Amino acid sequence: MRIYDVENFPNPARVRIALAEKNATDAITFQSVDVMGGEHRTPEFRAKNIGAAVPVLELDDGTCIAECPAIIEFIDHHFEGPSLTGTNAKDRAVISMMQRRAETMVNDAAGGYFHHATDGLGPELETYQNREWGEKQKERLLEGMQYFDGVLGDSEYAAGSDFSMADITLFTGLNFANFAGVEMPESLSSLKAWRERVGARPSIAG
Amino acid sequence: MRIYDVENFPNPARVRIALAEKNATDAITFQSVDVMGGEHRTPEFRAKNIGAAVPVLELDDGTCIAECPAIIEFIDHHFEGPSLTGTNAKDRAVISMMQRRAETMVNDAAGGYFHHATDGLGPELETYQNREWGEKQKERLLEGMQYFDGVLGDSEYAAGSDFSMADITLFTGLNFANFAGVEMPESLSSLKAWRERVGARPSIAG
Repeated sequence: MRIYDVENFPNPARVRIALAEKNATDAITFQSVDVMGGEHRTPEFRAKNIGAAVPVLELDDGTCIAECPAIIEFIDHHFEGPSLTGTNAKDRAVISMMQRRAETMVNDAAGGYFHHATDGLGPELETYQNREWGEKQKERLLEGMQYFDGVLGDSEYAAGSDFSMADITLFTGLNFANFAGVEMPESLSSLKAWRERVGARPSIAG
Repeated sequence: MRIYDVENFPNPARVRIALAEKNATDAITFQSVDVMGGEHRTPEFRAKNIGAAVPVLELDDGTCIAECPAIIEFIDHHFEGPSLTGTNAKDRAVISMMQRRAETMVNDAAGGYFHHATDGLGPELETYQNREWGEKQKERLLEGMQYFDGVLGDSEYAAGSDFSMADITLFTGLNFANFAGVEMPESLSSLKAWRERVGARPSIAG
């Protein structure tokens, strides 16, 4: 199996953390994509992912899987180890919902701000920018941090008592926010404590 | 179990079709939410779904599940019947990816156009509109239809040879596009044939 990505980019990090949690990193060949040079927008790469984004997981039969939650679904079901997506109907649903909230309210909001209201990846790559919409995403991002601070005041992890895919998305989403220049307010003490706890996991701290 | 929704709205339709596919509609109590009157934005409703949107599935233990794919995960694992989300690692990943593409490229693009570039639900409810961003979503919507026409020229359903959650999202997304005033181009013959075939299923045609 092969993963096309860029090391240290926020979305590729989601998949790399999931692999490390399953102790499966060594099962993958990583191939770097020259995103800054626009390789992800070539017809060759868009044939692997119409969304023109990394990461993409290519299976040995040539099937290409894009979208982080889909790739993590594959990893979680294909490799042994603690479940990242839940093992019964209720847990699966709660993790799916909280993953989605971490995505829209934090990760994608950070991305929307970064790509629309800052220089983003630069004028060559940011071919459509809408600054007003980008600024709105920053508001949503700060609301999202506030929401998750409340969630993590009530439970140990983003989707309950166990670490899951939802925590991975929230963690990398907060890193994306920092990268875009949006700091987590100091007052969000539950979110901050969770972030330190999750950041110390071997899958992240190394 | 109880579902809070509005009959015939695009996102509630996704869950209702999934329930009908599992022959489980009778297991649910439906409770109508006065979205046009703003009930979904009250503190009481936001305690059920911070996203202030329908549908929401409330389990018998009080747990509230929002986000259609999360609700359909629950339905698919809780009730008997043909799988809507896949039964092995690869199928689960492909269905998750194609569901997400149907969501972003068709359903959410239609929603973005509707809420931002048209009158949407009216001035009382559309408190933030960005017309330029909305018009961009219409472009993405038309590209999304084109993409799925290609997919459905190669395979019977949106995520392969079996009907799945991805087809539900695509079907209701096209209905949302129509509702927003965007017709599917007649030239997209594979998408049109698929739409007629899916629309004739008992879960949709009744």
